Amino acid sequence: MSHVLDLAKRLIAAPSITPATGAVFDELEAMLTPLGFAVHRFTRGEGAEGSDEAPVENLLAIRPGPEGSRHFAFAGHLDVVPPGEGWASDPFEPQVRGELLHGRGAVDMKGAIAAMVAAVAEVPAEAGTISFIITGDEEGPALHGTRALIDYMAAEGIRPDLCLVGEPTSVHRLGDMVKIGRRGSVNIFIDAEGTQGHVAYPHLADNPLPRLVAILAELDALVLDTGTDWFQPSNLEITDINVGNRAHNVIPALGQARISIRFNDLHSGKSLSDRVMAIAEKHGGKARPIISGEPFLTEPGAFSALVSKAVEAETGVTPELSTSGGTSDARFLRAVCPVIEFGLCNATMHKRDEAVAIPDLAVLARIYARIARAALALEEG
Amino acid sequence: MSHVLDLAKRLIAAPSITPATGAVFDELEAMLTPLGFAVHRFTRGEGAEGSDEAPVENLLAIRPGPEGSRHFAFAGHLDVVPPGEGWASDPFEPQVRGELLHGRGAVDMKGAIAAMVAAVAEVPAEAGTISFIITGDEEGPALHGTRALIDYMAAEGIRPDLCLVGEPTSVHRLGDMVKIGRRGSVNIFIDAEGTQGHVAYPHLADNPLPRLVAILAELDALVLDTGTDWFQPSNLEITDINVGNRAHNVIPALGQARISIRFNDLHSGKSLSDRVMAIAEKHGGKARPIISGEPFLTEPGAFSALVSKAVEAETGVTPELSTSGGTSDARFLRAVCPVIEFGLCNATMHKRDEAVAIPDLAVLARIYARIARAALALEEG
Ligand SMILES: [Zn+2]
Ligand SMILES: [Zn+2]
Repeated sequence: MSHVLDLAKRLIAAPSITPATGAVFDELEAMLTPLGFAVHRFTRGEGAEGSDEAPVENLLAIRPGPEGSRHFAFAGHLDVVPPGEGWASDPFEPQVRGELLHGRGAVDMKGAIAAMVAAVAEVPAEAGTISFIITGDEEGPALHGTRALIDYMAAEGIRPDLCLVGEPTSVHRLGDMVKIGRRGSVNIFIDAEGTQGHVAYPHLADNPLPRLVAILAELDALVLDTGTDWFQPSNLEITDINVGNRAHNVIPALGQARISIRFNDLHSGKSLSDRVMAIAEKHGGKARPIISGEPFLTEPGAFSALVSKAVEAETGVTPELSTSGGTSDARFLRAVCPVIEFGLCNATMHKRDEAVAIPDLAVLARIYARIARAALALEEG
Repeated sequence: MSHVLDLAKRLIAAPSITPATGAVFDELEAMLTPLGFAVHRFTRGEGAEGSDEAPVENLLAIRPGPEGSRHFAFAGHLDVVPPGEGWASDPFEPQVRGELLHGRGAVDMKGAIAAMVAAVAEVPAEAGTISFIITGDEEGPALHGTRALIDYMAAEGIRPDLCLVGEPTSVHRLGDMVKIGRRGSVNIFIDAEGTQGHVAYPHLADNPLPRLVAILAELDALVLDTGTDWFQPSNLEITDINVGNRAHNVIPALGQARISIRFNDLHSGKSLSDRVMAIAEKHGGKARPIISGEPFLTEPGAFSALVSKAVEAETGVTPELSTSGGTSDARFLRAVCPVIEFGLCNATMHKRDEAVAIPDLAVLARIYARIARAALALEEG
């Protein structure tokens, strides 16, 4: 699988700051078509005239296996976060320095997509159906990306049995961590309204800030849970409070705050939003939730076991099964089939001089090939 | 005392947006010198080069009574707040419309100063020493105004026995309210510091907002007192909270709040500041107080009785003895001698189209003359 380095370079060389369209998808399509994949690409989210929404490209590539065979999907994204300043070399000109391949997307996650392309070349079509579910909008609002792909698949009656997301889950060395779940995330905006007035005549005013403080104090004291076998305790953070009253003698008319909750599968975005709204209302305030993602858990079992076995076979490392960290598009794919995430080391993701250890690319390709074979060979149930 | 209207017009016609100097003091000096007053004027607060501090003029006028006679002082200010937009006539061109004299300062407090000038013309010098303690900086920072006059008087060995401040204390009709005290005022700035981080990794951050909320919740729950015979309960208001964190996924490093306490004579600015600082520190925050004024109370007695009697004699109204409302320069004069405040109706003070009922000017002059005579005749003790 020596050509995985070349595949990664080709993907990095096609700039694709989120949201991505065009050239980087042309490259991937050119890699997959010779391998027997039928590639469907479509663009969404052109936005209304004058909106700042940019179009998003999505790609679904399928190589069908024998009739009735299992379907293993690999999901990921070709968009990257903006490179920022101060790189040692052009972030979109892949450059090898020593054992490292530098370039934006090297680990998140063009390197992993290249590894999966190299992997499927080693897996015979008779083993089963393999698909690539690749979006150009994972790092952005993610409104027209993986969700649109899932809608398209549902409309076409395409339903994988298992899905591996290639996000960079490894921490210190390749293979040390696999994500079997992610916490959910909700931001809640809290308002307390009152009536402005002069501090010398408080009976003529209605200060909303004691209500805001009471809401926040009660929220901060909540113990949502103590964690589960697979999840950390859910956590609520007060992230902002703003009044903006510059007049020392004035009681303000409005106080606003924002909280962020990362929560495990004992809750849903709605259950927590309802709870926060009730607390806000009890104290005379209002809460407006924006749910970013629900939690998911692929309970340890046959799927996680085959992933761990593949990692161990190629690295000697037994991966930790984790549900830590932020959200990923697995929050959407979970609705389709069991999802697990595994990929490169994430130390340089989203950073200046993002780089992947070149040997990791080939090892990851071999791990992905093992996972694909084992996933397709897995007995139903 | 028909000329009180002319005196008020002359003072209004000299624009004197705070801080005041010059022409308006020339006018007052020209009124007092013919009445036998020795007038001393001085300017303070020129400020350092490049500072935005403007000079403040102050005036002390004394008409000495017989050796050993009592000394009654009238205190006030010639500066006015900016007129703002939308007046029906030029705010510095006194205009009579119906029974009203319009102009900035008509009630706060050029009208009252005019009334006192008219009053002293009716009180013979043999009755005792009378002084005018007049500043051009009451509506502004008040750093170089009445305080500088008090320093000057102390240096010269001038010490009144009683002082009347001519602030507009009447509410619905002339004479309905006399102020025998004022609450103190302190603003306290509260900071809670922490360490910024990502909401998905709270163990790597230190969110200061729970500490800020805990401080504010404890402060809001304080019952400072239940009031006294002469004062309302002391009152604490949370006036501002600011974090300014726009990133939904970020735990902020700093939270800031401000409270304002209006307090009665069961407390001092220092006692309350110490208490708030202890609460802030207990929760890991910091508090920085700025004391605007200490409370004062001139216990009802001979002085308030003679003021009430003078008001009743001219208006038929028995004034309420009150300590309500904001602060005034009486907070400084209280250190010199007993202070009471009485003046015109305050409905239009600091507002557009500020105006005084013309008959009130003459009535106030007669009340002031009665007060001066009675104060000078009061037995020591
Ligand atoms: Zn990614
Ligand atoms: Zn005033």
